[in-house]
Parts: sequence; C-alpha cells; structure tokens
Amino acid sequence: MSENYHPQKLPGPLALDGGGALTDVAVAYETYGTLAPDRGNAILLCHALTGDQFVASAHPVTGKPGWWARMVGPGKPIDTDRYHVVCANVIGSCMGSTGPSSLAPDGEPYAMRFPVITIRDMVRGLVGLLDTLGIERLHAVVGGSMGGMQALSLAANWPERAARVLAIATTARHSAQNIAFHEVGRQAIMADPNWRDGNYYGDEERPGAGLAVARMAAHITYLSEDGLTEKFGRRLQDRSEKTFGFDADFQVESYLRYQGSGFTKRFDANSYLYITRAMDYFDLAEEHGGKLAQAFAGTDARFCLVSFDSDWLYPTAESRHVVHALNAAGAPVSFVELSAPFGHDSFLLDIPALDRVAKGFLE
Amino acid sequence: MSENYHPQKLPGPLALDGGGALTDVAVAYETYGTLAPDRGNAILLCHALTGDQFVASAHPVTGKPGWWARMVGPGKPIDTDRYHVVCANVIGSCMGSTGPSSLAPDGEPYAMRFPVITIRDMVRGLVGLLDTLGIERLHAVVGGSMGGMQALSLAANWPERAARVLAIATTARHSAQNIAFHEVGRQAIMADPNWRDGNYYGDEERPGAGLAVARMAAHITYLSEDGLTEKFGRRLQDRSEKTFGFDADFQVESYLRYQGSGFTKRFDANSYLYITRAMDYFDLAEEHGGKLAQAFAGTDARFCLVSFDSDWLYPTAESRHVVHALNAAGAPVSFVELSAPFGHDSFLLDIPALDRVAKGFLE
Repeated sequence: MSENYHPQKLPGPLALDGGGALTDVAVAYETYGTLAPDRGNAILLCHALTGDQFVASAHPVTGKPGWWARMVGPGKPIDTDRYHVVCANVIGSCMGSTGPSSLAPDGEPYAMRFPVITIRDMVRGLVGLLDTLGIERLHAVVGGSMGGMQALSLAANWPERAARVLAIATTARHSAQNIAFHEVGRQAIMADPNWRDGNYYGDEERPGAGLAVARMAAHITYLSEDGLTEKFGRRLQDRSEKTFGFDADFQVESYLRYQGSGFTKRFDANSYLYITRAMDYFDLAEEHGGKLAQAFAGTDARFCLVSFDSDWLYPTAESRHVVHALNAAGAPVSFVELSAPFGHDSFLLDIPALDRVAKGFLE
Repeated sequence: MSENYHPQKLPGPLALDGGGALTDVAVAYETYGTLAPDRGNAILLCHALTGDQFVASAHPVTGKPGWWARMVGPGKPIDTDRYHVVCANVIGSCMGSTGPSSLAPDGEPYAMRFPVITIRDMVRGLVGLLDTLGIERLHAVVGGSMGGMQALSLAANWPERAARVLAIATTARHSAQNIAFHEVGRQAIMADPNWRDGNYYGDEERPGAGLAVARMAAHITYLSEDGLTEKFGRRLQDRSEKTFGFDADFQVESYLRYQGSGFTKRFDANSYLYITRAMDYFDLAEEHGGKLAQAFAGTDARFCLVSFDSDWLYPTAESRHVVHALNAAGAPVSFVELSAPFGHDSFLLDIPALDRVAKGFLE
C-alpha cells in the first residue's frame, strides 16, 4: 500500500535517540502548491498523533477530506497559491512511512522489534525528507499538538532549517497527566488478546477492541467539558427513555463508540504504542541540559505560539512556558491565547481567529 | 463470604426505578459507636463507587484501614463516642450486599441478569436497612462523590429520614464528560474476553485486565493535574535513564498500573458496570419534573455542601448548582469550596478544613 502514499526512501540510515539507527527508512509525504525556483516558499506541516500526510486531500482509507483542509489550500490561510506545503507521515506511524507495520530487513514486520523513537527522531526523518527534496530552509514549520512538538524540536535541533515556527496547542514536555492518559491507552491495547505482543500483522483479528478503548480515552482529553456538555449534555441517543441496560443510551456514549471503532479502521495499534511513547518521552529542556531557553539558544527563527483557553490537555500555561524560554533566549515570539469552546481539538476546527493568526504570521 | 460482612436481609422485595423488583435483598453493613436509647444519634455514611461498608475498620480483603478512618472514630470529626455510624455496602456492589455476583433465585449468579439500578434504588436499599435497624430519623446522612449523590437522593426522596445532609465533592447529575469516562471503563471491561458477557463467576480467569484499565482511566479523574505533577512529574521509576521500551519508565505509569491491578483483587467487574451505570443515570432534577429545586421541596433538613477547588470530576459549579436549588427550595444550606491540591480524591485525604466543616456541621 505504501507505494500509493509517495514514500521517499532516505539515502542513509537514520540515527536514533535511543541508540542505533533505522535503515532503509521511507518517509511518505504529500505536497500542495508549487515550489518556487529559489525554493524559499516551502512550509513543512507536522501532523498530530493520529494524523497523516493527507492534510488537504482526501484520506485514502476513509475518503474524508484532509485533516486541515480548512486551513490549507488555494486562497486559504496557508495559501497553496503562494506556498509549497509539504506534509509527511512521521516514522513510527502507519501511512507509508517506516513504522512497526513495515517490513524489517529480515522480511518480517518489525512489530515490537521496531525501536522506540522520539519526537526528535521523527523530525530527523522529516529533515531527511527535506534534504532529498532539496529544501534547505523552510519559510515556516507549522504544527498543532504533536505537530507543534515537532515544530519546536526542529527549531531547537536544526535551527537553520526554518525561518518561522508556528506551534499551536502544544507543549515542550509531556506532563504526568498526559503520560497517564497515554499509559491507559497503551494498557488497553496490550490487554487485548489479539495484540499478541504486537505480532498480529498476519492475523485475521487485530487488537481493535483495545485500540478503540485507547482512542475513546484519548478523545475525551481532546474535548472540553463545556464542549461535551454543549454538544451532548445528557441527551439520549435515538430514544426517549433510558433503557436500563448497557446499550449506548446517551449520545456521548454513542459518539465515543463511533470514534473508537472508526479509528481502528485506519490506524495501527502498534503505531499508537510507539507514537504515544515518543510523546511521553518528549521533554525539550531535558534534551538541552535541563534548560528550555538553552534549547532555543541557536535559533534565529521567528516564533508564534497559539493556545486555546478550553484546552486542558496542553493548557495555555504550557505555551506560556515555551514563550518565557524563547524570551530568555532572545528569540522573537508572539503569543496568543484564543478563546474557543472545543478544547484541544480547537486547532483542527473552525476558529476564524486561528486562521487570521496563521495567515498573518506566515506573511 | 457475605456472612462475614453482616448482611441484613430486607423483609420485602425492593421496587426498582427500572421497573420490577429485586427479591431476597441483603444489605451488608458495619456500625461504629452506640445507638442512643432515643435512636437519635445515627449517622448514615454513604460510600463512593468502589467504596464499601468498612469506613473505619480494616478491609477484609486488603487489610488496609477503613477508607475514612481519618474522619470516623472516637474523638474524630465524625465522633463515634457521640454518634452511631452506619455504613452499608450499596446494592449492585460486591461486599456482601446483593449485586451481580449474588445468587439469583435460580441458584446461579445474577451476572448481567442483575437489573440495572439507580442511585435512588441504592438509597431504597439503605432506607430498608434503616427500617430493619429501627432508625427512623437520622441525625445526618453523609457522603462524598457517589456517596454525596446518595445523601442528596435520600434528602429528596425520603425527606423525613434525615435532619442533616452533608454532601461532599458531588453533583446532582452526571455530566457528559463524567459519562464519557465511565463509558471508557465499561468498554474496557466488556472488551476483555474473560468478561464473557459477564458470565465469569465460575471461571479461573476474571476480566482483570479490562477492569484494571477501567480503574486506571477513572483514577486519573480522581486526581488533579497539579497533584499529579507534584506527586510524580516526569520522574522515572527506579531508574536513572529512560529505557526506550514499554516498561513503566515513569513513576506515574508505575503508580497507575499498581492502582489498576490492586483494584482487581477486591472488586467485581460486573459491579463496576452496574454502579457506573447508576451514576451515569443520576439526574436528581429529572426525577422531579426537571427542576432540581422541586427535588428538595419537601425537605426540612439542613444541608452542607463542600467542594474542592482542584476537583475537575465534580467541580465546584456542580455543588453551587445544588446550593442554588436548595436556596430556591428555601432549605437552609451552607456551602464551602475548600482549597486542596488532590483533586476529587481530596474528600478522602488529609484536609483539616474538611474535618472542621464536618465536625461543625454535625453538632
């Protein structure tokens, strides 16, 4: 399948933070808009945990529009009439880039033999892709959630590669609560007997039940309590009375079950383990002598941080923490907390103020 | 086992909100302190989701001290030198009161044939117990979390039975987010192949993995983000470096796994399904014509509501909602939001201000 996903083989092995290297690495990507002759108009878009390269084109499995189609396209805030947008699937994922479902050198799927990777490893793969594409310096690197972690990691570790960094609804480190929610998801997957220590690729049965529970738990963290109340409240699903049973009486139950089961059709359980692990390991300060300002010491990029007031997964304080470090490093940074009712998911949804911020910052 | 748990058989069948009745009902209970000759010094303590009757005595399975031993005992805020404290296991649970693990009239465990019950049904069982004990009017009914729901339900539905109502860290209705977290837990249990549609009582294997995941997800909601950060932060567990694997590298992971696996030794998975369902169904206003004030129209009790500023499961706004309804009903009510770092779990922990409030209100 990965042939349809525009995989780019990287020329050399990819050194990994955990030691060793990954060989024969493919990074699958999509582009939108035309690269300028001076190669100066490229924007790297980094996707979130369960995202992919199909930022502004239909998802090949679900047929749904790209996950940021409202933001990226001709005349849109990230205007593909002006910019050449590159979006690649991170390594560890399952949409054509090398991950646990890929074949290892021995011809069998890696499964849990895939090395534990970090956000910086993912970015190393993205930088490798940019190298093969001949893009030396990005007009901007842009990402929300885990995509924002990648944007910050690129700025810290490859400071010459991006002129602008737009990091939305993100953090420079995973908190104990963030780790806790991910651990619940991982335990749900690993408790699924169809997981079989990760060796399910040849099986008819996949660990879909565990993956669905993981997705359901995570999904709650993507929404705000007010948003859930407004969207669902205590309304019943297709019935006028409670059934006094264990069906999905409430709309919110039905919605979560739908989110959980739909997700399993497009995502690999082992990838979920590896990518959540990479996020939990993320601590940009720790990588740079324990001081976040130190991480940004070498940058001459301009930064823009955006948070949402209803985001309790990566609350505004996390963005502010990054802003303070950028201030300490003397980097130019603008910061805005937007008011939006949708919690963490706001970065993907119709928030016109975000459009204006993104468009303005990229000019 | 239930013989050791002081089960009290109720004389008649217990009518249920879902229709029908439960026959041959036992309510297992503990008492502390002496009932006064005029029977006027009884306090009914209502337990939370996974609580039990062992409020101030060692748990017979785990050997741990009672879950509110710091609050209940001689000279303690709920002073058993003065009060006769009754604490009973709710129906639907698994510590001696009739629940899904009990034998049905056909001699087989109810399992999922147990009827879906409500908070009001649980309280109906508690009132049945008080009847058999000859306690007509309580000095007070006291509870935190689901125990607070029971206290409010008793005040609303049996208004003559309690002179004082102390409801801590609770709500008059489950929110969409509350329901969502419970649904994740139920799906985790039901996804466990050892659950076998609830028919596991004769089996060697129990749905412990699913129940542990449910407990882990719930446990996160009992703690505050700040509390988690203070307690664990990103500290590693018994190691100085990340292992680049899927062991519990972080203390918070290790803690959650411990909470999850320990819980399965003392709790029944089907009981978890039934009790979370009862909590999700809880909407005291809905029971009373859609108006919460109407629920309290018949009461002459004094009320005290306590919330914690770090409780995001049942935040202060939920208590305030109850207070407004009590005001509208003309009921005397005091209300305090306490500052405590431990989130929802604060009601169980060492918060001296809570001791003072409880002691003062009960006098």
